[in-house]
Amino acid sequence: MTATTRGLVMVNTGNGKGKTTAALGIMLRAWGNNMRVTMLQFVKHSNVGEHRAAQRLGLEIVAGGAGRTSQGKNVNENQSCAVELWSMAMKRINSGNYDMVILDELTYPLKYGWLNVDEVLNVLKNRPDKLHVVITGRNAPQELIDFADTVVEIQDVKHHLRNGIKAQSGIEF
Amino acid sequence: MTATTRGLVMVNTGNGKGKTTAALGIMLRAWGNNMRVTMLQFVKHSNVGEHRAAQRLGLEIVAGGAGRTSQGKNVNENQSCAVELWSMAMKRINSGNYDMVILDELTYPLKYGWLNVDEVLNVLKNRPDKLHVVITGRNAPQELIDFADTVVEIQDVKHHLRNGIKAQSGIEF
Repeated sequence: MTATTRGLVMVNTGNGKGKTTAALGIMLRAWGNNMRVTMLQFVKHSNVGEHRAAQRLGLEIVAGGAGRTSQGKNVNENQSCAVELWSMAMKRINSGNYDMVILDELTYPLKYGWLNVDEVLNVLKNRPDKLHVVITGRNAPQELIDFADTVVEIQDVKHHLRNGIKAQSGIEF
Repeated sequence: MTATTRGLVMVNTGNGKGKTTAALGIMLRAWGNNMRVTMLQFVKHSNVGEHRAAQRLGLEIVAGGAGRTSQGKNVNENQSCAVELWSMAMKRINSGNYDMVILDELTYPLKYGWLNVDEVLNVLKNRPDKLHVVITGRNAPQELIDFADTVVEIQDVKHHLRNGIKAQSGIEF
């Protein structure tokens, strides 16, 4: 097999803290390499720090989603946001204007059936050759894992929020 | 137990790709929150992207170490670099000039016995109350895991470098 370079599909999954954080690190490194990078967040975060940082880098993080929920309260809103954001994602993926597109927490709309896995994979398969796509979130569907070039699983060994320490600026947000 | 906020010790360990990357993401988010953050790298990377990015953020990444090796070729050089860098780390930890100190790949000098685990833990225990410390690297010693507030383990599920794809700008460096 001859070594080659081409656009990669990278997935950060698992139950641990750090999937989005690792994607931010990828974004920062890409930015340092003058790559054109964008991030779309399929579940709304309260991570002011990352939005402020992206803004100061001249990068755009588009936040969709009505809030972190699986209980149905905001399901309709989340679903229509996810569909809208995926439509924007497809445009950006196919535009040729980016070297890297980060789809943060895309696994949730896939898991809840708001987006169709085959349709998403089809867009990934037909994307521009050199485009890197980074996908984060728990419970990545097996078809996505099978298709991806790189998959890492992040697992909590210990978590300070379980030990009576509050969420704080610069760590959780 | 009353929830509180204080400086945390966070460890990213495991055999997977993404430990340093996740630390870069933490650095970026902290920077976005106007925190004073510094990174010391105990094993030399060829990650031009992250250094360029840090420079453009006005942050300092200090790279020590003579190269990525466990084969003894550069051991002496790595050892003395690690000792020197740890001395710098202690000064920064105790200086009060930082909100977050990132000790990238500190686990290697601990594993090889170039630095003493008890001595390192002692410095962490006596650090300023609000200071966050992030430590990355494989094979984090059990004493460090026991002491840390948050530990995540990153595991490779799939890796593109095993599938004949070359290391490339913006991904590996």
